[in-house]
Amino acid sequence: MLLTSRTSSDGVTEQLFSLPFTFGEIPGVLWTPDGAAGPRPLILMGHGGGQHKKAPGIVARARRFAAECGFAVVAVDAPAHGDRPSAAEHDRIIAELRTRARNGGDLVPVLTEFHALLAGQAVPEWRAVLDAVGDLDHVGVGPVGYWGMSMGCGLGIPFIADEPRIRAAVLGLLGSADMAEAAARITVPVEFLVQCNDETVPRATSLALFDLFASTEKTLHANPGRHGEIPRFELGSAVRFFTRHLG
Amino acid sequence: MLLTSRTSSDGVTEQLFSLPFTFGEIPGVLWTPDGAAGPRPLILMGHGGGQHKKAPGIVARARRFAAECGFAVVAVDAPAHGDRPSAAEHDRIIAELRTRARNGGDLVPVLTEFHALLAGQAVPEWRAVLDAVGDLDHVGVGPVGYWGMSMGCGLGIPFIADEPRIRAAVLGLLGSADMAEAAARITVPVEFLVQCNDETVPRATSLALFDLFASTEKTLHANPGRHGEIPRFELGSAVRFFTRHLG
Repeated sequence: MLLTSRTSSDGVTEQLFSLPFTFGEIPGVLWTPDGAAGPRPLILMGHGGGQHKKAPGIVARARRFAAECGFAVVAVDAPAHGDRPSAAEHDRIIAELRTRARNGGDLVPVLTEFHALLAGQAVPEWRAVLDAVGDLDHVGVGPVGYWGMSMGCGLGIPFIADEPRIRAAVLGLLGSADMAEAAARITVPVEFLVQCNDETVPRATSLALFDLFASTEKTLHANPGRHGEIPRFELGSAVRFFTRHLG
Repeated sequence: MLLTSRTSSDGVTEQLFSLPFTFGEIPGVLWTPDGAAGPRPLILMGHGGGQHKKAPGIVARARRFAAECGFAVVAVDAPAHGDRPSAAEHDRIIAELRTRARNGGDLVPVLTEFHALLAGQAVPEWRAVLDAVGDLDHVGVGPVGYWGMSMGCGLGIPFIADEPRIRAAVLGLLGSADMAEAAARITVPVEFLVQCNDETVPRATSLALFDLFASTEKTLHANPGRHGEIPRFELGSAVRFFTRHLG
């Protein structure tokens, strides 16, 4: 893995990296507390659809996990997102999503297809990312958490189901059509976020997805507001959830 | 108000009291941090049906609110509970509840009737309790929170709706048949707990009650388990919720 830059502000060091993988490179970001040395818990963050590794919601949360918990945090551009090329198949689905969004059509079956396509690529990539950052002295091999909303939840579910290094996950903003089989194989503690006025995910389907997780400890937090309006206090809750399970 | 005893352990002072009210006495408990002096936020706790002011779930939470937040906490026996006499009307409803519980009948309409009957007594009593403890030097007149599950939620809703001293509430384990009109008049921040396998409150009715609150900030926490199996980490969440809104 090639670390391409290093900056620091407010006690958190941010390093961009590029990880060679199959036929290309995975561009990513690693956040750690300034002066970090030795192994520590790691949180892998999966961004939402149309976003990228440095979307504001990812950066703000990552910096807080690093500063407040002392954890390492990593995010990469998902396939067809951020600095990565998209294939014809991606473009076809994205065009279909845009058409349906414009015409008020049903997005769910297309999102489900898109997530399944991307997960096939993202899951092995994330495994490679965990391997690579585990070799860094200031990350090492410790317990790993996963944070992902919306598409980050859809791609995260099959990853968590098959990746024993993941010990706890904060997920949400997704319904039961997505990854139901994999969801039923998840046994780690889950904190699951629902927005009651989500314009793309009906609340009943979110509850149905929550019900599928096989985890003994799972907690659902529902708040008023639309898809993108998770209240600020939920970040504090995620900090404490990860601290309890990884710290 | 007559303070009848005073004990202290683990940094928390517990004082039993008896407050004269209309034709009888309201027996209660006040918890404060040892050595407390001057005004501080207060939490009023409403116990569940069949419980009393010193039920283990009340005491454990009250001691933590006092020790960790530095707050005063008060609980009283609800009418027909604990050390208080029950009237013929109470006894009739309680007998009907027992019969239905034994025969698998529908408890909801009887519980709703019971809560409405008790609330008519409990709400003015709680106002008197707030007045009385506000006169104590180590409680004073500060922001007030309300905590109540199940019957404590059912009696709390009409109280909170009409009592401007209440600034935030942790409620739950109750469905929408109860106090719907009053719930729609609640505007303070609410944290609302739901047990997904609640044997007495169907989840859909809990969600419907949550939807009724007019609060801009309201957050629903749903966890697996039966009515009495709220996970321990929810107490930490309540501590932070009250600290954020009363502290």
